Amino acid sequence: MLVSALLTSVGINTALCVLFFTLYSILRKQPSNYEVYVPRLLAEGTSKRRSRFNLERLIPSTGWVAKAWRLSDEELLSLSGLDGVVFMRMITFSLKMFTFAAIIGILVILPVNCWGSQLTDIDIGDFVNNSLDVFTISNVNSGSQWLWVHFSAVYIVTGFVCMLLFYEYKFVSSRRISYFYSSKPQPHHFTILVHSIPTSSSSSISDVVQNFFHELYPSTYLSHVVVRRTGKIHFLKNEAKKLYKRVTQLRSDPTQQKYSHQDFSAVFRLKNSVREHYEKKLEDIEENVRLKQSEASLAGEEARAAFVSFKSRFSAATAFHLQQSVNPTHWITELAPEPRDVYWPFFSESFMRRWISKLVVVLVCSTFTVVFLIPVVFVQGLTNLNQLEILFPFLTSILTIKIVSQIITGYLPSLILQLFLKLVPPAMAFLSSIQGYISHSDIEISATIKVLWFTIWNVFFATLFSGSILSVLNAVLDLKNIPGKLAVAVPAQASFFITYVVTQGWTSAASELFRVIPFIFSSITRPFSSTDEDDEFEVPSIPYHKDIPRVLFCGLLGITYFFLAPLILPFLLVYFCLAYIIYRNQFINVYAPKYDTAGKFWPIVHNSMIFSLVLMHIIAVGIFALKKLSMASTLTIPLPVLTLLFNEYCRKRFLPIFVAYPAESLIKKDREDQNDATMTQFYENLTNAYKDPALLPIHYSPNDGSLNSPLLSQA
Amino acid sequence: MLVSALLTSVGINTALCVLFFTLYSILRKQPSNYEVYVPRLLAEGTSKRRSRFNLERLIPSTGWVAKAWRLSDEELLSLSGLDGVVFMRMITFSLKMFTFAAIIGILVILPVNCWGSQLTDIDIGDFVNNSLDVFTISNVNSGSQWLWVHFSAVYIVTGFVCMLLFYEYKFVSSRRISYFYSSKPQPHHFTILVHSIPTSSSSSISDVVQNFFHELYPSTYLSHVVVRRTGKIHFLKNEAKKLYKRVTQLRSDPTQQKYSHQDFSAVFRLKNSVREHYEKKLEDIEENVRLKQSEASLAGEEARAAFVSFKSRFSAATAFHLQQSVNPTHWITELAPEPRDVYWPFFSESFMRRWISKLVVVLVCSTFTVVFLIPVVFVQGLTNLNQLEILFPFLTSILTIKIVSQIITGYLPSLILQLFLKLVPPAMAFLSSIQGYISHSDIEISATIKVLWFTIWNVFFATLFSGSILSVLNAVLDLKNIPGKLAVAVPAQASFFITYVVTQGWTSAASELFRVIPFIFSSITRPFSSTDEDDEFEVPSIPYHKDIPRVLFCGLLGITYFFLAPLILPFLLVYFCLAYIIYRNQFINVYAPKYDTAGKFWPIVHNSMIFSLVLMHIIAVGIFALKKLSMASTLTIPLPVLTLLFNEYCRKRFLPIFVAYPAESLIKKDREDQNDATMTQFYENLTNAYKDPALLPIHYSPNDGSLNSPLLSQA
Repeated sequence: MLVSALLTSVGINTALCVLFFTLYSILRKQPSNYEVYVPRLLAEGTSKRRSRFNLERLIPSTGWVAKAWRLSDEELLSLSGLDGVVFMRMITFSLKMFTFAAIIGILVILPVNCWGSQLTDIDIGDFVNNSLDVFTISNVNSGSQWLWVHFSAVYIVTGFVCMLLFYEYKFVSSRRISYFYSSKPQPHHFTILVHSIPTSSSSSISDVVQNFFHELYPSTYLSHVVVRRTGKIHFLKNEAKKLYKRVTQLRSDPTQQKYSHQDFSAVFRLKNSVREHYEKKLEDIEENVRLKQSEASLAGEEARAAFVSFKSRFSAATAFHLQQSVNPTHWITELAPEPRDVYWPFFSESFMRRWISKLVVVLVCSTFTVVFLIPVVFVQGLTNLNQLEILFPFLTSILTIKIVSQIITGYLPSLILQLFLKLVPPAMAFLSSIQGYISHSDIEISATIKVLWFTIWNVFFATLFSGSILSVLNAVLDLKNIPGKLAVAVPAQASFFITYVVTQGWTSAASELFRVIPFIFSSITRPFSSTDEDDEFEVPSIPYHKDIPRVLFCGLLGITYFFLAPLILPFLLVYFCLAYIIYRNQFINVYAPKYDTAGKFWPIVHNSMIFSLVLMHIIAVGIFALKKLSMASTLTIPLPVLTLLFNEYCRKRFLPIFVAYPAESLIKKDREDQNDATMTQFYENLTNAYKDPALLPIHYSPNDGSLNSPLLSQA
Repeated sequence: MLVSALLTSVGINTALCVLFFTLYSILRKQPSNYEVYVPRLLAEGTSKRRSRFNLERLIPSTGWVAKAWRLSDEELLSLSGLDGVVFMRMITFSLKMFTFAAIIGILVILPVNCWGSQLTDIDIGDFVNNSLDVFTISNVNSGSQWLWVHFSAVYIVTGFVCMLLFYEYKFVSSRRISYFYSSKPQPHHFTILVHSIPTSSSSSISDVVQNFFHELYPSTYLSHVVVRRTGKIHFLKNEAKKLYKRVTQLRSDPTQQKYSHQDFSAVFRLKNSVREHYEKKLEDIEENVRLKQSEASLAGEEARAAFVSFKSRFSAATAFHLQQSVNPTHWITELAPEPRDVYWPFFSESFMRRWISKLVVVLVCSTFTVVFLIPVVFVQGLTNLNQLEILFPFLTSILTIKIVSQIITGYLPSLILQLFLKLVPPAMAFLSSIQGYISHSDIEISATIKVLWFTIWNVFFATLFSGSILSVLNAVLDLKNIPGKLAVAVPAQASFFITYVVTQGWTSAASELFRVIPFIFSSITRPFSSTDEDDEFEVPSIPYHKDIPRVLFCGLLGITYFFLAPLILPFLLVYFCLAYIIYRNQFINVYAPKYDTAGKFWPIVHNSMIFSLVLMHIIAVGIFALKKLSMASTLTIPLPVLTLLFNEYCRKRFLPIFVAYPAESLIKKDREDQNDATMTQFYENLTNAYKDPALLPIHYSPNDGSLNSPLLSQA
């Protein structure tokens, strides 16, 4: 790849970033965009829509950067829970790691690479076309003793990253414990979810649950709520809400009111009849909902799952940890999620159904991964100008224009790939949701892992092994030759991944700030929505399953390429700095947490880093062998082993804390509560905490009681 | 291999078996051999040594066969615990499985194999030298539709074995639960072992344990016993026992008394002074033991581990299942073993030490496996006559004698291999013992798994891939070509493994009955031991880690070869019938259980069968591809997937029962005890159940109080 192509790409993306930043600085001050840029503040009532116009609104300002910079960890914790803190830790961790790597990479490895003469010796004619490769390890002469510099760098950076990982894991897990200690009594600490309850023909599920737990835990069992099949009610309620919105719109349509005083009475009548039609339909649905709700309360609609609450955290934990029944596939217990976090629709209830759905999802997931490779192959084809000219001969004239060819080779491929990848997170989230998880947070964690593996496989490996499914599988299944194959393929793609960081990383960070899609969506829908904008709008929650894999994948690129092509590091550092400021700003202004896993995302980050390190070691083994320095190659082999041992130690030392709280902490918290007078009230609320929202009366948004809905009056 | 060579081998082994059976029938009736053949009955006092001679003692009888045959499951349970029942279930399971396989194999597959003409077509000259191969799948013509018979057999037998496995697992796990229900209150149900206790400079471990558990479980915590470092005392006590034996021998030596009344007074004085020397030494050691014992009672010798007892089974289980401390590497809990089952010597105490020793053992284990291949290669060389003649030219004249060459090819190789393999179980048991397990049973379970893998790797795979380490590793690491390589190698070794079953299986079963080594040992030592034979002798316990892998390996051979060379099946059936009778006899007469794991060996059996099935499927995929019936090859692929899914289901359905008892059962048993008056007594005993035997006074065997040992008077 040409240096000029890279510079073009960097130029375009820097310009885009500056544009987004400037636009954001201006647009966020416009009251009409508050919903897009400061929904959180709007919901909290901190920011009011000021219609008063002043000039200041049109001048870009940087105040928000300073505000985001000054945000302390404690403020972040109170704003976004421990998950937000963990997310930001992931970025600061990457910053620390790559700052260290960049010092070594730029000051030591880069000069060594340039010093070499491997590439200039062989094909001096191609020098211009390969100019970026001069900065990579490919330029170091075979058998050169300078490779020991790379070898030392691999060891030093691995040591540093592992040390950092250990302290981060320690920090996050201690934060998790102190977060638990500082928490108020919360329903999900006192509750477990039991599923695969054995049915009996004589009594209802509710009775079975009552008998079982009352028999086993007479002194600590408090109450239970049987889960009911409410998929249909959920559907109907959503329908009702949509209709309700339509009716209110029809009623208060300003355009309608403007023109109706004229002789457009025919139109008016039509609209009126439409409105009446909708009102009728809405009433029908509400009637239906009430009917279904009363049906659902009957025993027949009981699912084989229940939330069981206990009088103390410790006894709930006991019931969770111990196998309850003689048959381990009955009475399976899980920790209950927060009430707001429960994912009601697809409540899978029996052991077998859950297991089978899991297997099916795994199958679908792998099929999806395989099918996805086809567009990637196409994208890979685009990076090769010659191939493009052969495929589309009519493009030849355009492709000879220098700027076009540079855009195509430097920018277009990864942009197209990026667009395709946009489809992946929703697809994976959907797959996770039908896998049998009971909470939004579990679904998101599972989707995060899926998207991460998907990205690593489809972007990293598919790019390396030129995209055909068979060649990737061939390379991975041939265990012995993996290092050799990687050693050939990885440096060859250095320039692609440098461009990838610039286009994918920078642009995605900037567009995260600018919130391109919500902005466009809001611009389109604003003219049609009612003028009273204070009504319903949801404060979004940060889509972890989209953002975490993106950040982690950049981490993987950085770790694997830091000693091969250190030129990637400055671009990565820019990306992480952007991400640091932008996500902090978004936590302040945009996102409100929908649930709180208390840091359960960290193990994913940790595992991803370990995987990246081991991958880097395997590549190093291959590279040193390829460069005919077999001593270094052999001496690198202990490194992945040591890294995996370190990981194993961390798993034992920290992971249990992320699965469940220890007895010590639970008992301590329980003791504290014994003297708390508010506990009686809490127990009363606990009994009702896990009511399916579908069984509650329909509740439209609070400040629009204009419609005399029969259900609204009940609420 | 020649049919005649196989027949020679069968002949020799049948003769050996008959010889062993006859000898056993006679020798077991001689009072001097009671210690070898009926130690269990002797210890129970059922069998008395009758010195009266009668002719009947010299006539072989078969009464013991009938007795072993009639033994019911309930009697076996009371004799050898659930472990004995599980061991016999393994053999009956194999019998059922291979009877079914033999019906299909002999009646259907064998004729199909013989019908083929692949081998006769190609090299008719070699027919005589390859005659055994005519009965294998190698003789079926390539692309022949008859291979669908093999294909169906693979499916049918897999289905049958899986069904059988499911019902066996179900049976064993239900037996385990009912065994628990019928058990009396036992110390290990009420106790957990805590290790990695954090030390504090101000207080002793005992105080730390007391405070911690009293704080967390004030209502259920009962008592604790801190483990002490007693390795030295164990050593000294053993020394003392040896010396004591010597001294008693010197005192009551009949030869000495006979001759001393003559003028051998010089000899007598010498002997006397030797005796006095030993007595002095013994007293010194006893003094030393007492000193060390009082030292060990001090805080300084406390290990960072303790047995903690609770008032109920449920609370002990709770403490076991929950992570106790905020730091998961502190206060690690395990279920306590039975008091008699505790392995005191190598009590590893801290998390790190235990982890590191585990890693070291894994490393040593693999090194051992690799080094072991060298004798196997040598043994393989012996099966090849030509190679032998080249290596040792002076043997040529002997090797040309037909009977010698037949013995060498048919019998010697596997006998030598067998002798080498005898060294493996003790070595593996030693490795397991330093791995950090706290009980004899855990050590034995771990050793069983190690020996099993060792056998599969070193006997099966090394034989297949002609023994060189590199070729085996090459074959296994090349994932894609494994089926192809197996398909070539496995049928080629059919005759070797048929011989292996005959020599290894039959002879080992017969020698198990005859107890060759204990018999030789007893014959040698008898003249030197004291005449009063009623004194100390230990009833042996069955060495599961030797016998289970042997039986399971025969199972593996049967499963992998049943459709390739069905000729192996009759020999296997004979082996399992022998094993059935012989082991039942040994359970009645010889072995007494040293501990009771309540059936924890069954999951090993199950996993081994699943592994054998999947291996067989992989071979089948390769064979069908090799035989140019790619349709069958493709259609076999779902089979291992289904088998693994079935295994996964079994893991979820049954395995938890073998890890710990469910809450339901624990609480039920606890309730029963509440009305039991003897529980107060039991709690009192519980406090002292886990005292290290090293800290008890030296206790010599009960019925020889002739020596006035100062410690003996204390006991």
